[in-house]
Amino acid sequence: MDFPKINAERVWRRHMELARIGATAGGGVHRLALSDLDIEAHCLMNKWARARGFSVELDAIGNMFIRRPGTSSGLTSDAVPVASGSHTDTQPFGGRFDGALGVLAAFEALETFEDQGLETRRPVEIAIWNNEEGARFMPGLSGSAVYTGALSLDDMLACTDSDGVTMQSCVERLHAALPDAGKRKLGQPYAGFVEAHIEQATLLEEAGNTIGVITDIQGNRRFEVEVLGEAAHSGTTPRARRKDAFIAATNIATALRQHFEANDPDDIARFTIGIFNAYPGAKSIVPGKVEFFIDFRHPSSNTLKELGDAIDVIAKANQGTCAAIVREVSSAAPEPFADEIINKVAASAERHGYGNQRMISCAGHDARFLSRLCPSGMVFIPCKDGVSHNEKESAEPADVAAAAQVVSDVLLEMAQQQ
Amino acid sequence: MDFPKINAERVWRRHMELARIGATAGGGVHRLALSDLDIEAHCLMNKWARARGFSVELDAIGNMFIRRPGTSSGLTSDAVPVASGSHTDTQPFGGRFDGALGVLAAFEALETFEDQGLETRRPVEIAIWNNEEGARFMPGLSGSAVYTGALSLDDMLACTDSDGVTMQSCVERLHAALPDAGKRKLGQPYAGFVEAHIEQATLLEEAGNTIGVITDIQGNRRFEVEVLGEAAHSGTTPRARRKDAFIAATNIATALRQHFEANDPDDIARFTIGIFNAYPGAKSIVPGKVEFFIDFRHPSSNTLKELGDAIDVIAKANQGTCAAIVREVSSAAPEPFADEIINKVAASAERHGYGNQRMISCAGHDARFLSRLCPSGMVFIPCKDGVSHNEKESAEPADVAAAAQVVSDVLLEMAQQQ
Repeated sequence: MDFPKINAERVWRRHMELARIGATAGGGVHRLALSDLDIEAHCLMNKWARARGFSVELDAIGNMFIRRPGTSSGLTSDAVPVASGSHTDTQPFGGRFDGALGVLAAFEALETFEDQGLETRRPVEIAIWNNEEGARFMPGLSGSAVYTGALSLDDMLACTDSDGVTMQSCVERLHAALPDAGKRKLGQPYAGFVEAHIEQATLLEEAGNTIGVITDIQGNRRFEVEVLGEAAHSGTTPRARRKDAFIAATNIATALRQHFEANDPDDIARFTIGIFNAYPGAKSIVPGKVEFFIDFRHPSSNTLKELGDAIDVIAKANQGTCAAIVREVSSAAPEPFADEIINKVAASAERHGYGNQRMISCAGHDARFLSRLCPSGMVFIPCKDGVSHNEKESAEPADVAAAAQVVSDVLLEMAQQQ
Repeated sequence: MDFPKINAERVWRRHMELARIGATAGGGVHRLALSDLDIEAHCLMNKWARARGFSVELDAIGNMFIRRPGTSSGLTSDAVPVASGSHTDTQPFGGRFDGALGVLAAFEALETFEDQGLETRRPVEIAIWNNEEGARFMPGLSGSAVYTGALSLDDMLACTDSDGVTMQSCVERLHAALPDAGKRKLGQPYAGFVEAHIEQATLLEEAGNTIGVITDIQGNRRFEVEVLGEAAHSGTTPRARRKDAFIAATNIATALRQHFEANDPDDIARFTIGIFNAYPGAKSIVPGKVEFFIDFRHPSSNTLKELGDAIDVIAKANQGTCAAIVREVSSAAPEPFADEIINKVAASAERHGYGNQRMISCAGHDARFLSRLCPSGMVFIPCKDGVSHNEKESAEPADVAAAAQVVSDVLLEMAQQQ
């Protein structure tokens, strides 16, 4: 099989153009899911797709699909498309590559096929999965989760952001902004899926490699902890009479961190408290309530169970004069990818002489859910200093081109298979 | 001198009426400074004042003055008025008595004088000091501070709330709501000031006493602490590479608390962290920044200096891989009250057989600033379980009446003095 060469300059230029939508003063991108800016990003992708003659569809949860047709048609099994993609939404003040790389590497592959007049047996699609980050609507990965049946459409559409705006109203605005898009049914099958992404860590950088061949996605468990004390006047209430929810919550957070560290000498577990709110949040009131959120990830199911189950026990042991309530709000088991995709990714990297290594994905990605629908895999490239979810997120043009090349190769191989 | 008896039923009823403005489902009051509700409270006080023939004035920072005239007039020194009062603003989801008691005890005194047709040599005024709580505009006590020259009028009017609304625009709305109010110049002298307030602690309750004769207000120092780390992806960034501002901030908060506790065996120091914000505040981002606020109060100037100065040292010693910046944002020295007012308060309590004790005020009050303008003092009554700045704040009708009686006695004595 001949593997056409992608256009390195073009795929980088498209990244810089897409990054203008929601560009921050700090050099990053602030483009929350289904915000005006994210809808603008979808419209730009639609414009580019139409200019190349690709068709565009939207589904009921706001996923967008850009399709280049295949030669097979009708109901034959080789008419089932193959796909690649990721997402256009970002974290608050996030970076230019997280999500964008997966979408634009896939777009470059389709443009390359088009440039060459290359015919594929199967249709080839770009999927832009909606609300991957979960920064605006919880949970994240909701577009791919709803598409593959892991989440209920109605539940997700009913979700509201912090201003009380429903996801449903935002999805309707996306559909209204793209009136010519066809309608896609949820769950339509794929014959294979590959997603390119920046590593968001430093293994590739440290090893001097270009391509990460991803074998698994680590699992996670998320918890909300509510600590109830009693609000009181900060000037008059002696220590002995306080039920200070801030003190109890910091004691719990510290004890949890120490327990996780003590049980993770190899620095594999990812234990993070990213949200921590004290109520009522006034300068002269002892906090009567604290709510915080724990994000715990690990590649081992056993460790996820053992350390995760300890959270409630440790919280209650450190609640002092307050009351701690721990609720698990979501979880995902570790997800192994398909050998046939892993092997295609590795073969492509070898073919082009890209230094590569097998590794797991520490972050969740849409490929986690696609993996339940069809053989799936991922391609990582280095990101500078492992910094991501941050305006400083950075990737090299040559690595971006390598990602597009591998995606192009894997899509083509999958698309020509019977 | 004859001391007329106040109307216990009336002063309680007025408390319940005022508490309807901003009443919360939890039985408290949410009436932030210069909000629509607080302006409504001022209008109600104005209505009650007009109904009794008292005159009403407003000053440039939004303090409101209700006056019953005296018999002296012109420029003689005994035409300088005496006053009592407090504030109508509350903490977020605060109580029915904090502030309201001082305003309504004073109003009851004026009504009692009016009922009796009693003539006083000096005018007697009720002062409603603006923005005492500091929950909406920082700093608090700003009405009394600007009136007495401790704060700049222009600086305070330029303050904004968390929505960016200036205090100036709110003060203008208050003036517009009371078009018939006279204009009062800032800093006009008083011959004496007394303020009634709930204790917001449990000394009176534990001793079974009704009246606290306040000798001093404890001092305070307030600090903002900023902790700078680096935002990072929670799924991919290993512990060893994190600069987690949440961990550094909780380590600093814990070390500070332990230091204050170790140096305060008698539970006198009041050390509180009531505001603590992690940024960007997302579930899957290691916090890159935390800001928190320290409220430290103590009756001893030496201890305020020693423990307060330790905050920066302890913060830097516990900043780990992050950087801690400590800024002192305000301070107030301990404030002793005038013996002549202290003695009048004690004499009134004895006269009516109210169990009483001398004590300091652990909270800041407007009397702190009035004390720099004229001989001043305070009267405390018990509040249930010491709970204040809380919807559950509660005081007994008999104690409210006792406060009004003492205020009436002290105002009368001050008003008749040469």
